[in-house]
Order: sequence, then C-alpha cells, then structure tokens
Amino acid sequence: MALIVQKYGGSSVADAESIKRVAKRIVDTRRAGHDVVVAVSAMGDTTDELLDLAHDVAPISNPRELDMLLSSGERISMALVAMAIHSMGFEARSFTGSQAGMITTADHGSARIVDVTPVRLREALDEGAIVIVAGFQGFNRDTRDITTLGRGGSDTTAVALAAALQADVCEIYSDVDGIYTADPRVVPRARRLDVVTSEEMLELAANGAKVLYIRAVEYARRHGVMINARSTFSSGQGTFVLGPGMTVPAAIAAVAEESAMEEPIVAGVATDLGQAKVTVIGVPDVPGKAAEIFSVVAKSGANVDMIVQNVSAAATGRTDISFTLPKSDAATALRALAGEQASIGFESLVHDDQIGKLSVVGAGMRTHSGVSATLFEALSTSGVNIEMISTSEIRISVVVRGDDLAEAARVVHSAFGLDSEIEAIVHAGTGR
Amino acid sequence: MALIVQKYGGSSVADAESIKRVAKRIVDTRRAGHDVVVAVSAMGDTTDELLDLAHDVAPISNPRELDMLLSSGERISMALVAMAIHSMGFEARSFTGSQAGMITTADHGSARIVDVTPVRLREALDEGAIVIVAGFQGFNRDTRDITTLGRGGSDTTAVALAAALQADVCEIYSDVDGIYTADPRVVPRARRLDVVTSEEMLELAANGAKVLYIRAVEYARRHGVMINARSTFSSGQGTFVLGPGMTVPAAIAAVAEESAMEEPIVAGVATDLGQAKVTVIGVPDVPGKAAEIFSVVAKSGANVDMIVQNVSAAATGRTDISFTLPKSDAATALRALAGEQASIGFESLVHDDQIGKLSVVGAGMRTHSGVSATLFEALSTSGVNIEMISTSEIRISVVVRGDDLAEAARVVHSAFGLDSEIEAIVHAGTGR
Repeated sequence: MALIVQKYGGSSVADAESIKRVAKRIVDTRRAGHDVVVAVSAMGDTTDELLDLAHDVAPISNPRELDMLLSSGERISMALVAMAIHSMGFEARSFTGSQAGMITTADHGSARIVDVTPVRLREALDEGAIVIVAGFQGFNRDTRDITTLGRGGSDTTAVALAAALQADVCEIYSDVDGIYTADPRVVPRARRLDVVTSEEMLELAANGAKVLYIRAVEYARRHGVMINARSTFSSGQGTFVLGPGMTVPAAIAAVAEESAMEEPIVAGVATDLGQAKVTVIGVPDVPGKAAEIFSVVAKSGANVDMIVQNVSAAATGRTDISFTLPKSDAATALRALAGEQASIGFESLVHDDQIGKLSVVGAGMRTHSGVSATLFEALSTSGVNIEMISTSEIRISVVVRGDDLAEAARVVHSAFGLDSEIEAIVHAGTGR
Repeated sequence: MALIVQKYGGSSVADAESIKRVAKRIVDTRRAGHDVVVAVSAMGDTTDELLDLAHDVAPISNPRELDMLLSSGERISMALVAMAIHSMGFEARSFTGSQAGMITTADHGSARIVDVTPVRLREALDEGAIVIVAGFQGFNRDTRDITTLGRGGSDTTAVALAAALQADVCEIYSDVDGIYTADPRVVPRARRLDVVTSEEMLELAANGAKVLYIRAVEYARRHGVMINARSTFSSGQGTFVLGPGMTVPAAIAAVAEESAMEEPIVAGVATDLGQAKVTVIGVPDVPGKAAEIFSVVAKSGANVDMIVQNVSAAATGRTDISFTLPKSDAATALRALAGEQASIGFESLVHDDQIGKLSVVGAGMRTHSGVSATLFEALSTSGVNIEMISTSEIRISVVVRGDDLAEAARVVHSAFGLDSEIEAIVHAGTGR
C-alpha cells in the first residue's frame, strides 16, 4: 500500500461530469489499496470569472481581499469532489489551505510555502478517509490571513503535501498525458517520455514546456518528491520525473527497466514564442554600463532570460546589448530604460517581439560532446538563422525568427533521433 | 459616534453595480463618524447555483461538504465588497465566519450560534478599518469544521455580531424599505411602520411577514439588539424593531417622539398562503388519540401550526381533528399518519392546500377588548368564511379560503384604521 498524492487542474474539474470522472479515478486508486490525498484547482474558468468580477468592482484590487476572493474557487471544487466520492460510497473530507496546515509567507498573490503541518490530514487518513485539499492557497501565521500561491500554485500544493506526508508519488493530472520530447502541436512526431530527470524537467519547464510548473518541480527536487505527470482523460502511466537516486517503485507502475536506466543525450526540445528581444544600441563601452542597464530592467520587474553583448566597435567606443524577456514585461522594461537614456548614455532602443526560442535539453550533454555541432548543423541545413545563443550545463538555447521556430523544432527533434514512428494526438491547455 | 452593524442580502450584492452601491452606503456610514461592521449574503442566485452543482455531482450531498461548498458564496461577496470600499479610499477587511469567531453547534446546514468571539473584528475596528463578515456561516470548535446557519442565517449573523460587539443598532437591508402594516402586494394601502415592538415583529414574522427572519428577531430580543429594517435602494429610515425599554437614539435616526411612544391596538395584518390543512376524520373520541396523532406528525418532522378539534358526535363516538402545517411538510406528515391508520383507528385523511391564514397582531390587544369582534365583523361583512381560529396574547389568526385571503386582508386592514392615504410601491423578494 502506498500513499499517493494527486493533483487535478481546472480543466479536469470543469463541470459536474468532469468532477464525477475525477472522483471515479480517485476511488479507483483507493480501491487499489492506496491512501489518497488530492489537491484540486478551481473549476474551469472560475478564477478568471472571479478576476473579472474583482475588476468590475474595483480597478485595483486590494491584495488581501483578492486572495480571499480567489481562494473560494478551490473550496467549491474540493467540496464537490468530496461529495461525488461520498456518493460512490467512500469517505472523503475536504480541507481548506489553512485547515490543511499550508503555512506561507504573507505575500498575497504570490505567497511561498514555508511549512506544512498536515495534522488534520493525517487524522483523516488514519480514519480511512480520502483527503481533498484546496490547491493554490495557504495562510500566514502572523497575519492569520488567507494567501494564494500564484501561477502553478495547485501543483506546488500537491508537491508540498507529498513532501510533508512522505508520499510515494505525486501524480499531477492535466489534459496532457505526460512530458513529451517536444510540444506535439509543434512537432507532430514528438514522443512521450516514460521518465525524465528533475534537472532536465526544470530546464524544459523554464524554456517553454507547459505541462508542469517550474516552482513545483523545484520544490519536488528539493524535497525528494517523485512527480508523475499524467492525463485525466486516459489510463496511460504518463511521465515520471525522477530526482537523484529515484526509481519508480513496482507498486506504482511497471516502467520498463531499460527506459528508466537509459540516459539519452537529449531528453527533449523546448520551444517558446512568449519572449521578446530588446536591443540597446550604442551603449558607451565603459565599465558598469551593463550593470546600469540591467539594474534599471530588474527594478521594472522584468525577468531577463538571455543576454548577448556584441563586440565593441573600436571606432565608436560603443557597443550593442541585446536581451530577451517575457513579452508581457517588454513595455514596462522599455519605458524604464527610455527614462534613463540620458544617464546611461545609449543611442536608441529596438524592440522585437517576433522571435522564437528553441532549447535542447539533456543530462547526457555533460558527458557527450558534439551536441551543439549537431544543433547548429541541423538549423543551418534547413536555412534557419541563429540570432542569439546561450547555454547551461545541460541545455543549449538559440533565438531564431518566430516564423522559423516550428520548422526549426522539427528538424532539430529529428536530428537528435527523437522522432517517434507515429504522430501524437494531444489536447492543448493546462490548469493552474 | 456609534457602532453600527449592517446586513446586506443577496439581492443587494447581486452584481458589480449593486456591490458598488452597497460599498458607497457603507462608506457614507463611516463618513458620518460611525464604526461599521457588515454581514453579507452570497451574491444573488449563487447559493441556488451551488446547490444545483451539488445535485449534479451527487444525488445526496454530504452535509459537511455541502456547508464547505455553500460557505464559499459569502467569501466571494465579502471580498468584493471590501475591494469596492478600498477603491473608495477606505480601509476594509473581510473575515470568514471562523475568522470572525462565529462559533456554532456542529449541525451542518442548520447550525445554531453558541458563542461569538470577535477578537479579530475588534482589532480591525480599533485600527480604523471597516469590517466585512461572511454571513450565514460559522465553525464548530470540536470538529473544527465549517458550518452554515440555514435559512435567514445572514440576518442571524448580523444580530449575533451586534450583540457580541454591543453595537448601537443592527441595520438589516433588503429590497423592502421596512416593516409594513400588511404585505403591500396584497394590501396596497399598507403603511410602513416607524417602529414595531420585537414581540409584535415575532408574531408578524411567524405568521407570514417575510422581511425579517424569526430566528434573527428572537436572537435580537434575547440579547437586547435593536434591529432597523431598511432598504438598500432608498434613503428612508425604515422600521426600528424595539425590544423592551428600547428607544431609538437621536444619533442614529430622528424618529418622531409620538410615533415611537404610541402603542396602536393593531400593528399589522400578516397573510400566509404557505400553509396546508390536514383533517383526520373519524378519530375515536377516547383520551390519548390527539397525543398519538401529533406524536406521529412531529416524528415526521412537520411543524404543526394551528390545531382545531370538532365537538364529538355523540352518536358515533368519533371526532375530527384538523391542523395546519407548511405546505412542504404536508406529504411527509400524511404518509406518516397513513402508516399508523390502524393503530390510531381513524377513518380517513383529508388534505386541503387551498387555504390562507390571516393574522392580526398588536401589543395593544392586551389592554383593548373588542379586537376579535372587529375582526370577525369585518370578515363577515365582506362574506369571507372563517374555517379555523387560534389566538395568542397579542395575535388572532383565522384560516380562510386561499382565494379570499387578499380581500380579507384589505377589509381587515381597513377595519382597524391602518390604511394609508396613498398606495405603496414596493419590490418583492428577500435575501437569505
């Protein structure tokens, strides 16, 4: 008997029928002899509807009250899931974030979990009940106020519960049946991975893969939680995200030995159309200018990803600095830089939101040379121009024209031998 | 400076516009120099929508989970009201039932308040904030579970808060601008009362007046809380419900001295079309039969109101017993009685759901004779037949044909000199 934590996103509990389907899956897990703890998101578009209401009532929402408002969404879905389980003859008990002992910082809207004291959950489990917990929310001990965890919060709730309860696995359900070697909407011959290492998963998530939230993967890695990403709509075993030294226990799934042991050079190809590029032209080539620029950008709240500085043109004593950042951050960052043009002394700003980022991720890169050569050659053969390059220990990312991204992903996927025999059929979308 | 508790029902917070209107009213009260604590119901039809969802998910709802579900409705409305107040530049803080210290019994769906420990509300008031509390909900100390108070729960929340905080007045807002001498939809010449005694209000509420819930009026009476029933949609001062020894303080309203002091013989005429009549025919006229019948009815959960036993027909040694009860209880009570027909030994059951109940209520009845004579004469003159009669110290009720009820109410209202010069224009409906 194992202790299994499951997380169901908004699309998995979007209506009464979906809730009953989720309840059946939970009950099936219980019937298989396991203890079950479930974290749920708000139903379908509930959160967006509540945000619309808040906006209609007040142009700027008070953060404490916004958290009070949004946290009601998960209370609705968790109570309904518990009711559906009851009507199947099983005992279920729902708990809010504070009842579940999900203690967070006081940062409304983006609180971080600082402790989990699941006393009531343990009691309920000991009494044989299935436990349902509101995802996305917690409370702060000092203010005694309700908080929410921000984007991907329900995934983090599930992983934090798994860590605190020392669960055998944390199953994260969505409408996608696992982690793919590439986004199947972009690369039709993408293959589902049986296993992926948590460091690969972190790089994939940070570079455009949308199935798991990076925060939840980080938390899982830090606390030794095994994540299993799988689909609410199929019975497939999905993808296991394994931290250092982890193997999938036979009690949970029959993952082929060789598949769990092999370490392919490249795990996957991530694509991201959500970035924009800003180029600061004619920056005086004197020490401290890059620091000035990125301190202005950081203060604007923008999240800079890649940075490239051109070789200085000796004649002018000036250089260009380019960086990428989320499209949604670009306007603010540009405004902030324009405001400091005189003090920094650059000539002009160029904004380009027609870029695409392609990343090749694989733990095998550490020990295999030639990955970048294969990547550049594949892109060159297909006529795709590379505009920026950045690397980490297990990743190479390139910026290309946005229009070229899909084609680039397909040829690179192929060049690393990742193509499957058949084309994948997958739905789009994720919960919160 | 006074401490004022306000309660806004579902129709008062039905959408963003309504919420902003309520926020403005709250802010106006604060601007007038008062401390303000507000209890809110769920928005418009939220509760019914949640009940529908629950029904779609599970035919029979688990009571604990149903309370968890329904209590989310008030969290939404209270957070939105607090946000709207913030955007007007005033500090507001919302609190759930448990955060507000609303301690109840563990009876899910119909919990009773056993204690109120408003520590956090006091703190917030001391810091100058307007306090918003979720109506209709509390929590049980032993189970640590969330409970709901059942019908009229938000009114009770408001009154309980007013009692615990020793508020100067508890203003209950709805879409009706006070207590009338009769239902204006039935008696167009009904007058709004400036004041009504709490014992009259109890009789009026128990006999069909729908503006205030009887439970809230009882609680107010027991704890010395002054209720002010008024409209969200007008600036009128509404009706003050005064317990023994209470007078309206000048700081709150300028109620005319004479109107507060006068004690009219009859305060109002209540009408009720929600009752049915059951007649048990041919009951053996031996001791204990009435007890048997009403013990069966009570066990079925029905709430018996009036009881009449005919004089026994000497020839047969049998008698008929009639009683009234809410229409919704009739089927269950009839089934329970039919199941005991042999043991009780009655001949048959007659069910009549075409009745109407008219009640004349007035504290002045204690000291004025002739009230029943005036009532019966008015009904007789207009050709209305009386089927049952029951009386209390300050009330006379009669059962008539349902079709006759409106006409009966108008002539009785007129006969007691209650008619106003002009016809009232009032909306229908109440919140929870």
